[in-house]
Amino acid sequence: MRATLMYGAGDVRIENVPDSRIKNPTDALVRITASCICGSDLHPYHSMDAAAAPARMGHEFIGVVEEVGSDVVTVKKGDLVVSPFAISDNVCEICKENLQTSCLHHEAGFWDGIPDEGGQAEAVRVPLADGTLVKLPVAADSTLMPSLLTLSDVFGTGYHAAVAGGVKAGSSVTVIGDGAVGLLAVLSAKRLGAEQIILMGRHQVRTDLGREFGATGVVSARGEEGIAQVRDLTGGHGTHVVLEAVGYMAAYEQALGVVRRGGVISRVGVPQYEDAPIGFGSLFRHNIRLAGGPAPVRAYIDELMPDILDGKIDPGKVFDATTDLDGVPAGYRDMDQRTALKVLITP
Amino acid sequence: MRATLMYGAGDVRIENVPDSRIKNPTDALVRITASCICGSDLHPYHSMDAAAAPARMGHEFIGVVEEVGSDVVTVKKGDLVVSPFAISDNVCEICKENLQTSCLHHEAGFWDGIPDEGGQAEAVRVPLADGTLVKLPVAADSTLMPSLLTLSDVFGTGYHAAVAGGVKAGSSVTVIGDGAVGLLAVLSAKRLGAEQIILMGRHQVRTDLGREFGATGVVSARGEEGIAQVRDLTGGHGTHVVLEAVGYMAAYEQALGVVRRGGVISRVGVPQYEDAPIGFGSLFRHNIRLAGGPAPVRAYIDELMPDILDGKIDPGKVFDATTDLDGVPAGYRDMDQRTALKVLITP
Repeated sequence: MRATLMYGAGDVRIENVPDSRIKNPTDALVRITASCICGSDLHPYHSMDAAAAPARMGHEFIGVVEEVGSDVVTVKKGDLVVSPFAISDNVCEICKENLQTSCLHHEAGFWDGIPDEGGQAEAVRVPLADGTLVKLPVAADSTLMPSLLTLSDVFGTGYHAAVAGGVKAGSSVTVIGDGAVGLLAVLSAKRLGAEQIILMGRHQVRTDLGREFGATGVVSARGEEGIAQVRDLTGGHGTHVVLEAVGYMAAYEQALGVVRRGGVISRVGVPQYEDAPIGFGSLFRHNIRLAGGPAPVRAYIDELMPDILDGKIDPGKVFDATTDLDGVPAGYRDMDQRTALKVLITP
Repeated sequence: MRATLMYGAGDVRIENVPDSRIKNPTDALVRITASCICGSDLHPYHSMDAAAAPARMGHEFIGVVEEVGSDVVTVKKGDLVVSPFAISDNVCEICKENLQTSCLHHEAGFWDGIPDEGGQAEAVRVPLADGTLVKLPVAADSTLMPSLLTLSDVFGTGYHAAVAGGVKAGSSVTVIGDGAVGLLAVLSAKRLGAEQIILMGRHQVRTDLGREFGATGVVSARGEEGIAQVRDLTGGHGTHVVLEAVGYMAAYEQALGVVRRGGVISRVGVPQYEDAPIGFGSLFRHNIRLAGGPAPVRAYIDELMPDILDGKIDPGKVFDATTDLDGVPAGYRDMDQRTALKVLITP
């Protein structure tokens, strides 16, 4: 079968690889019908550790179950399923607290850590299929497919940012980052009743989509100037909640600048730093809280899917390009150059 | 009048100073009947910035109102009052969100930042008296005085740690630090219904009081060994909530070691560091949250005082020594050498 491999920074190739197949009785084999490239795939695209190469890519996909192991009971051959970007048994003590990204099972983890499997491919072996996969009540050619695919990561991640940040009716919210996750954090904050949603982003096509998703204001400036503009929009106070969907230190510093006293910074952009200011001069003095992490999107699928099926929301609008597997290397390039927001793959 | 001044590390003196007096119409003049030395007073006692010397000391006190400015309406001459360690108007937008330690008023702030005033003295000028002071419904010679005095800081601070950490019925909690705040964090966690409360502390007299306050277990080891013991007590998982009542980096690292996946570290020990690990390898990977800051004790007095008046709780047990003003320098020494837990002052 064909799959996407990354050999190093900027070096993405489509190659023939051994067919994925069932290994354990809890596995499912899924023929992929839709997958995509993630903003986080651009981190190795910029600075891949050579020791990790070549790496199979892709952690967001929808597909048809082709075969299941003998222990699998919740999905069967022919089912259309969506996979979260993390594998979980969904029954351990931590999963029961709805933190499936921290599942205790030894086979649990991120797709990016599973050897020889990935979503940007023709097929994939899914470990812990009962816990991981969620059946979709539509056909594989449904026009809802782009929106349903966002349940595998970017919508659930934006939603997690808002939930972890405690967004509720009347909240004021700043969203940092106009990538797919940032835009869907806007949609999520709106869904949870936020009154004021300020999107910090510089790409007008994207911030226009942010406005469509519910942003009440857009600030394109960064750094001190951007912070000053957000303060201007909030009576000088900043916002109760800041959803940080970038992951760089500059974005964290921006979050510190726009958060209200007593407010919360909720991070879903994977931090590209380890140490950062959290002492008296940054978080502590004004009881600023810090929340977020890898989103347990498995926990949100049941809640969010009905809104998609009912046509109430259309998170799939974040996809602005579609390609087959051959076009994946160009898709990485386009997302890196920001000429594409998010690329859908139909293998 | 006589007051406590710190001239440098280890150098505390009782001196005659100009009498405190009303300056603004929102002031009250309070004759102090009970005050105390705080664990946080030991930070300058260890390493005082010479440029700040001499500094008036003391931010926890009870006293009798001697005079009020023309605008003061909530307290009058003769009232017995308690003062939080922070001055606030209690009516601004931030105070209304119960974050009086971040009050927006230009006269608001910590007692330690008010020039020429302090609680370890015979009298004190209280700015924003209407917002700051709370009347006590007992006489100045009440046997409840030690417990009521803890409402000015240490009980409210321990309680804030537990509230900010989201302690609720059934929570598992680790408390780091066996000082007065740590012990009252134990009492607070118990009051909020925590099921398991592990106190990390090395001084048996103190940890015994911690057990009396509700600790279900005590771990005296520190570092990796202490972390391993807490994990042993929690099925390997750590606790949902960690209340960090120390402020040193080692305590934060210990908190990272004992917090459960998806849990929260709530800090009330003033951080003696600015940068610390919060990236993928520390907080982010398992959605560990960070909360806490200077406690808005003003917000908790109305809630906690009835339990003291009813005799349900006795937070004043943290005082194990009493002195007049002359004994204050020795009181600092005893607390620094840990031969005293917390020293009550009756000027």
